[in-house]
Amino acid sequence: MSGWLVIAGLGPGDEAQVTPEVTAALSEASDVVGYIPYVRRVADRPGLTRHETDNREELDRARHALEMAAGGGRVVIVSSGDPGVFAMASAVFEAVEAGPQAWRALDIRVLPGITAMLAAAARAGAPLGHDFCVLNLSDNLKPWDLIERRLRLAVEADFAIALYNPRSKARPEGFGRALALLRETCAPDHVLIFARAVSTPDEELRVVRLAEAAPEMADMRTVVLIGSSATRVIPRNGTPLVYTPRSVTV
Amino acid sequence: MSGWLVIAGLGPGDEAQVTPEVTAALSEASDVVGYIPYVRRVADRPGLTRHETDNREELDRARHALEMAAGGGRVVIVSSGDPGVFAMASAVFEAVEAGPQAWRALDIRVLPGITAMLAAAARAGAPLGHDFCVLNLSDNLKPWDLIERRLRLAVEADFAIALYNPRSKARPEGFGRALALLRETCAPDHVLIFARAVSTPDEELRVVRLAEAAPEMADMRTVVLIGSSATRVIPRNGTPLVYTPRSVTV
Repeated sequence: MSGWLVIAGLGPGDEAQVTPEVTAALSEASDVVGYIPYVRRVADRPGLTRHETDNREELDRARHALEMAAGGGRVVIVSSGDPGVFAMASAVFEAVEAGPQAWRALDIRVLPGITAMLAAAARAGAPLGHDFCVLNLSDNLKPWDLIERRLRLAVEADFAIALYNPRSKARPEGFGRALALLRETCAPDHVLIFARAVSTPDEELRVVRLAEAAPEMADMRTVVLIGSSATRVIPRNGTPLVYTPRSVTV
Repeated sequence: MSGWLVIAGLGPGDEAQVTPEVTAALSEASDVVGYIPYVRRVADRPGLTRHETDNREELDRARHALEMAAGGGRVVIVSSGDPGVFAMASAVFEAVEAGPQAWRALDIRVLPGITAMLAAAARAGAPLGHDFCVLNLSDNLKPWDLIERRLRLAVEADFAIALYNPRSKARPEGFGRALALLRETCAPDHVLIFARAVSTPDEELRVVRLAEAAPEMADMRTVVLIGSSATRVIPRNGTPLVYTPRSVTV
């Protein structure tokens, strides 16, 4: 009865970006739990049960994993990217806080992963090379007003900004509103990067100026990186390089 | 003459957090370049030249690496954490922009790594599980006023905040001022995490309330994570778990 629960980040898609500690935890697991496409990234083997769940069932999934670990299972919850950035780790700790006291004594470890913005930034150059903000643009779990308020303050502070979940079929409007807000306050040549499915065969990277940016450039597989006013574009053959300088002079 | 330049993230310290693509690049390199303690993390082998430089010489180091790659070298610049987050990638692209046109045609790749805040957050629970900001507290390359302005706006937006380079011997004052600013605007029970040397043998993790936080709790090996107003602490035996819920209700 020495079960444990690991909440592991699989990175953005490429197996060469999965850390050895995550690979080791998966090799010792009795159960893998997660959203269908992430669980399918874990190879089947004897002694491993793969539990695939729908994307909307995060708290149920967390409770199920905690129950299995409490019963002696060696359980890995898999997230894409990093589990602590808009992924499963918070859901697990919500379940722990609301659950039986015994869950607090469980061996629970979070293993970090390469989150989408870091993979996207690496492909583009170094757009997050100075201070930046990270915002989930989905209003499934928070009011849109709060998103807009945070975006305004982030622009006022002249942070670079990474937007997760910018646009989905169920939420087609928000990202257009975010672009409109940026157009009110930033110059037309402010730099945006649309990074889709980075590190997978579907990868697409697009560097545009705010004046040309359109809502359709983003979908649920896209991370949008917004430069600060200092962000630079280096033209060259192919996709330009984008970076934010380390220095700010006044 | 098919040289290349890779800017690679070694993660916070534990070799089990170095991605396989970084390990592969290092195994193919002719030259490794970087700040002394990071270069020393790369094992010596025949055919590899290790170039150790001081921390303050980032632009010189970048130019040197670009020259070697332009001359046919297979060059890896190593950074701790992620190279795009307050590390070497921006310095390299600054050098590219200011350098000879031929450098723009070089094969330059950035390989992401586990940056300190993700490793620290994973150890604590999921304090960055909702929207957050990332700020370099060093005023070596930007005016202190800008840091303070960004910190104020980040608190106004109720972001969780990760502070890099909070305090050094050369800059003992800034973090104390940052704490004073937080005390003006946040409740005394606002949560802070001092995460020092995460994933190394010197690791220390400390969860405190703002009322108890003191400047001496941070040094240059510390990342400070500041919760949002919604951040929760789950008491248990040993270090408590800290997480920021996914939902905001109004």
